Amino acid sequence: MRIGVLTMISFLFGAITSMVCGYIGMTVAVYSNARTTVNCMREGFKEGFNTAFRAGAVMGFALTGLGIFVFYVTMCGYSSLYEPAEWNIMFDCLSGYGLGGSSIAMFGRVGGGIYTKAADVGADLVGKVIEDLPEDSPRNPATIADNVGDNVGDVAGMGADLFGSFAESTAAALVIAAQTPDLRNAGWGAVCFPVVVSASGILVCMICSFWATHIRPVTTEDKIESTLRNQLILTTFAMCPAIYWAATTYLPETFHMDGVAKSMTATRSGAIMCVVSGSIGGLIIGVVTEYYTSFGYEPVREISRACKTGAATNIIYGLSLGYRSCIVPVFILATIIYVSFESCDLYGVSLAAVGMLGNLATGLTIDAYGPVCDNAGGIAEMSELPHEVREKTDALDAAGNTTAAVGKGFAIGSASLVSLALYGAFVTRIRDSSGGVFGNVQILTPLVFAFLLIGSMLPYWFSALTMKSVGDAAAQMVVEVKRQFDLNPELRNPDCAMRPDYDRCIKISTEASLREMIAPGALVMLAPLIAGTFFGVYAVYGLLTGALLSGVQLAISMSNTGGAWDNAKKYISGGYDESLGGKGSEFYKAAVIGDTVGDPLKDTSGPSLNILMKLMAIMSLVFADYFYAINNGQGILRMPVD
Amino acid sequence: MRIGVLTMISFLFGAITSMVCGYIGMTVAVYSNARTTVNCMREGFKEGFNTAFRAGAVMGFALTGLGIFVFYVTMCGYSSLYEPAEWNIMFDCLSGYGLGGSSIAMFGRVGGGIYTKAADVGADLVGKVIEDLPEDSPRNPATIADNVGDNVGDVAGMGADLFGSFAESTAAALVIAAQTPDLRNAGWGAVCFPVVVSASGILVCMICSFWATHIRPVTTEDKIESTLRNQLILTTFAMCPAIYWAATTYLPETFHMDGVAKSMTATRSGAIMCVVSGSIGGLIIGVVTEYYTSFGYEPVREISRACKTGAATNIIYGLSLGYRSCIVPVFILATIIYVSFESCDLYGVSLAAVGMLGNLATGLTIDAYGPVCDNAGGIAEMSELPHEVREKTDALDAAGNTTAAVGKGFAIGSASLVSLALYGAFVTRIRDSSGGVFGNVQILTPLVFAFLLIGSMLPYWFSALTMKSVGDAAAQMVVEVKRQFDLNPELRNPDCAMRPDYDRCIKISTEASLREMIAPGALVMLAPLIAGTFFGVYAVYGLLTGALLSGVQLAISMSNTGGAWDNAKKYISGGYDESLGGKGSEFYKAAVIGDTVGDPLKDTSGPSLNILMKLMAIMSLVFADYFYAINNGQGILRMPVD
Repeated sequence: MRIGVLTMISFLFGAITSMVCGYIGMTVAVYSNARTTVNCMREGFKEGFNTAFRAGAVMGFALTGLGIFVFYVTMCGYSSLYEPAEWNIMFDCLSGYGLGGSSIAMFGRVGGGIYTKAADVGADLVGKVIEDLPEDSPRNPATIADNVGDNVGDVAGMGADLFGSFAESTAAALVIAAQTPDLRNAGWGAVCFPVVVSASGILVCMICSFWATHIRPVTTEDKIESTLRNQLILTTFAMCPAIYWAATTYLPETFHMDGVAKSMTATRSGAIMCVVSGSIGGLIIGVVTEYYTSFGYEPVREISRACKTGAATNIIYGLSLGYRSCIVPVFILATIIYVSFESCDLYGVSLAAVGMLGNLATGLTIDAYGPVCDNAGGIAEMSELPHEVREKTDALDAAGNTTAAVGKGFAIGSASLVSLALYGAFVTRIRDSSGGVFGNVQILTPLVFAFLLIGSMLPYWFSALTMKSVGDAAAQMVVEVKRQFDLNPELRNPDCAMRPDYDRCIKISTEASLREMIAPGALVMLAPLIAGTFFGVYAVYGLLTGALLSGVQLAISMSNTGGAWDNAKKYISGGYDESLGGKGSEFYKAAVIGDTVGDPLKDTSGPSLNILMKLMAIMSLVFADYFYAINNGQGILRMPVD
Repeated sequence: MRIGVLTMISFLFGAITSMVCGYIGMTVAVYSNARTTVNCMREGFKEGFNTAFRAGAVMGFALTGLGIFVFYVTMCGYSSLYEPAEWNIMFDCLSGYGLGGSSIAMFGRVGGGIYTKAADVGADLVGKVIEDLPEDSPRNPATIADNVGDNVGDVAGMGADLFGSFAESTAAALVIAAQTPDLRNAGWGAVCFPVVVSASGILVCMICSFWATHIRPVTTEDKIESTLRNQLILTTFAMCPAIYWAATTYLPETFHMDGVAKSMTATRSGAIMCVVSGSIGGLIIGVVTEYYTSFGYEPVREISRACKTGAATNIIYGLSLGYRSCIVPVFILATIIYVSFESCDLYGVSLAAVGMLGNLATGLTIDAYGPVCDNAGGIAEMSELPHEVREKTDALDAAGNTTAAVGKGFAIGSASLVSLALYGAFVTRIRDSSGGVFGNVQILTPLVFAFLLIGSMLPYWFSALTMKSVGDAAAQMVVEVKRQFDLNPELRNPDCAMRPDYDRCIKISTEASLREMIAPGALVMLAPLIAGTFFGVYAVYGLLTGALLSGVQLAISMSNTGGAWDNAKKYISGGYDESLGGKGSEFYKAAVIGDTVGDPLKDTSGPSLNILMKLMAIMSLVFADYFYAINNGQGILRMPVD
């Protein structure tokens, strides 16, 4: 009873904290959009950049700071109710905090993703209806919905997603630590080690952020991307001594773990290696993502050149780039998993996730920076400011596109580590309940293999739903825009003083996002429940593994393909290659087609797969006892246990 | 020593048989192209259809007939060298037959796929260079390469792929049967049961083919697709009594199996269920594929309508359709695997594959029918026959596009069953060599999980290579076409008597296909070898499972997306929906972009993944003893065995 209430309370705390952070982030982003534009006009790159960067920093530090504060306070409150020997029960209740965060992320990522891209794709397609309407033109009724969407999807959605990973990885690490007698006996500090890592990460990020704003400020256009990247590198390496300090201060020299792979004696240096591997691995994934999605490098330029033979080759090369961009990140993830799993079993995997999210404050700063600049450009366009202002905001925004892809790389990587840790916690729980019967997850048994295959299909099913939602909602948007132009032909006139009806477009996006979220949401929630209820826990094991394996690949390839198309378009429109003709050329039009296709891939379907992986795993963990209660884990159909 | 020689001999027999079948199929297809055109002109639908259908039937029956004949003769020859108690050793040598077939399939599917789509995409893109050049125009230098490619990729490539599956599934079933003492003791007939099923399937298909050509001939356009589909349905159901007869005649009532999942007593009715589930399951996959790729149904029509808002929505809806089209086939595959695995362990899985390929003769007939009609249309265009002839061949071809997608569905389904059976045979072999140490493949161990992730990435890596190969080769083709038009501007004139230099375009395709095949081929061959050599057999287990899981999904979605785009274009150009404007409209141009993107997806990358799955599995099986020899299966790096 008390466990249920405490889980519920942590669920609420998690959900509310995530919402508050999203609200703060969006509010600040909205305030800062116009300021960024103004600073780009009156002052220069440095001030424009700093404004957008600081707006992102509010989001980054508010989210991580509030997240860890509420989490720690909840922990301390609960700990007063239990003896240290019962801490393992108490920490189980904390997994509700992660579920709360992930549930809000479901709305933010999936709903927000549909919202933003319905508006964005819709606004892009309007060019087909009204020729020569520039991007972000105030005459386009869908423009405001597009701008709102950038905040909803890219600020609040991304934040909620990463908040979920942050909360879940910390909770998973704590749950396992509390189940390990040696760590429990070593005291509160040893158990709290993951929280200490996260907290010191925030301090490190705060100190490092002065580097970008004061010590090495951005002065010219070509410095923007490198400044943002350097922030990531700086914070990653600055984390290492902090991790070392935290481990030597709080962790015992060695501790015994009764892991899911084997019983083992883990060491303090092993734990340090787990956190550091996650942290460095995340950085490498980020850098590789930048390589594949920034027009500073060959892959995106190759896509731009493919536009010379039309939209079809643009799409073919883009898809190929997305597939290729999986190679290195997956090798890195596999290495992190191997190293951390081998040295500290599942505790290591969750520590690696904590490490990867250690510099989350900086990661989020950079992420939220993107949409602020995007909207700053929109405001420059709509208020008909001089052309140079738009050029400055575009340059800020191009870097933002790349960093958004980098952020997605982090988000996917950490989501996969988190879901593995949660999945492992689920298996451990069932194993302990069943006295070891369900401890082995064998690939080559009929039930597991069948559900491995079904699980691998789920990300495709989910993506089919989200992609089509965007397409349908965008089509609705186009119809509405057409209607408004047919009703008021005056709107076609560039000098028309009348404003289109923005509200109806916003309403279409809002309603579409809420309506279209139901099917994918139900899929994620119901799949493990149905599998567990009817086919037993082996089916859930297979389902989670399959979804994780194919979800990672699909998410990485979708995000990077979309990011690359977006920047290939910017490479042409920016006139960086004379032979491509610049904005308005035939090649540019081919690039716009790629960009439009990439929108739902990179901002709706791709990142939503993080939610799929995490939510399925944490749902299973929360319902573990229920699954085991049905015919001892064999499900209603009493599947044979081999 | 003798084992090595016999394996080599069966490898050669497999490779040579596959090549001979491909040669026969291509020769007959080339002969029949023009005859189909002539019959469409002089006689009517019925005669045109029958010519193309019979040309396909030559391929279908030659391949299956020769395949089973050579296989059986080899078996009988080998059996004279061994006592029945040693049959298990002898049949191991027969797995070389499958490897031979699959190696040729590597050339046919991957090389042939690059060949055909380099020419096809190149020819399509020429429209960007020379405006208003109709499809298959003799003035286009790439036209002949395109026509040759249809034969290389779609006749020989598809044939070699399915021949490989056919040989491998039969070989896998025989290997397991020969390892089962109860079946060996029941005599030659019991061991040969899978061969009997395949052989009776050929007879059933032959009898049923009279239905299409004589009893219910095609008279009108709308009957084409249903006639082809009815052939599949008819042969599937006619197989059932044949399977029942074969099982009751040859199989013992019950037999004990020492399976990889568990030791069990299998029954004759269980074995019948395995074969029938494969056969019926294949049919359902085929019908679902037809639903998603034929313009007779809503999904493709929806894509056609999406062209109204441009190429971008066309692509978005198409990708979404491909993802969605995985759902039912994967559920069917999972069910087949569960049922057959549970009732006869891996023997059941290989029997299900044999069952799915039971009516292969008909499946191949329908597959080879497509490119014959495609080329018949090309010939009609080039010889400037009346417009009505082209319309007739186009109608025949549209049905061929759908049946090609259906054939790919079969090919993917059977490839996944075959690779599971081969993978299981590999695990069994290593388990027996190691005395049970490597018998369990646990998901939640560091090494296996890391390689599961890497394995799932391989299909993406592989597809990235093949997609880009097509893009690059097509770009080369465009350059060549441009060069020819610049050299002889006269070619632009529709009445120009001069012929372009077709040979150079053919040479580009040929060279590109051979050169670009190296990288993906090396990836498939080397991945299991490197994993096994350095990281041991657990790594290979993970690698094969991951590649199988994500390969199936990617292959299905790619094939169906491409097929749907192709038919969405045909739906518009055929004028079936007046609001879409027909050939030459803006909407048609948007559909052409989708079709061009779909070309490498459906004919190169997608089906090549079958080869990836099968070849990796059979490579591992062939090298099983080598892997185990390196530090007892721990690899050079002596990975810890948990």
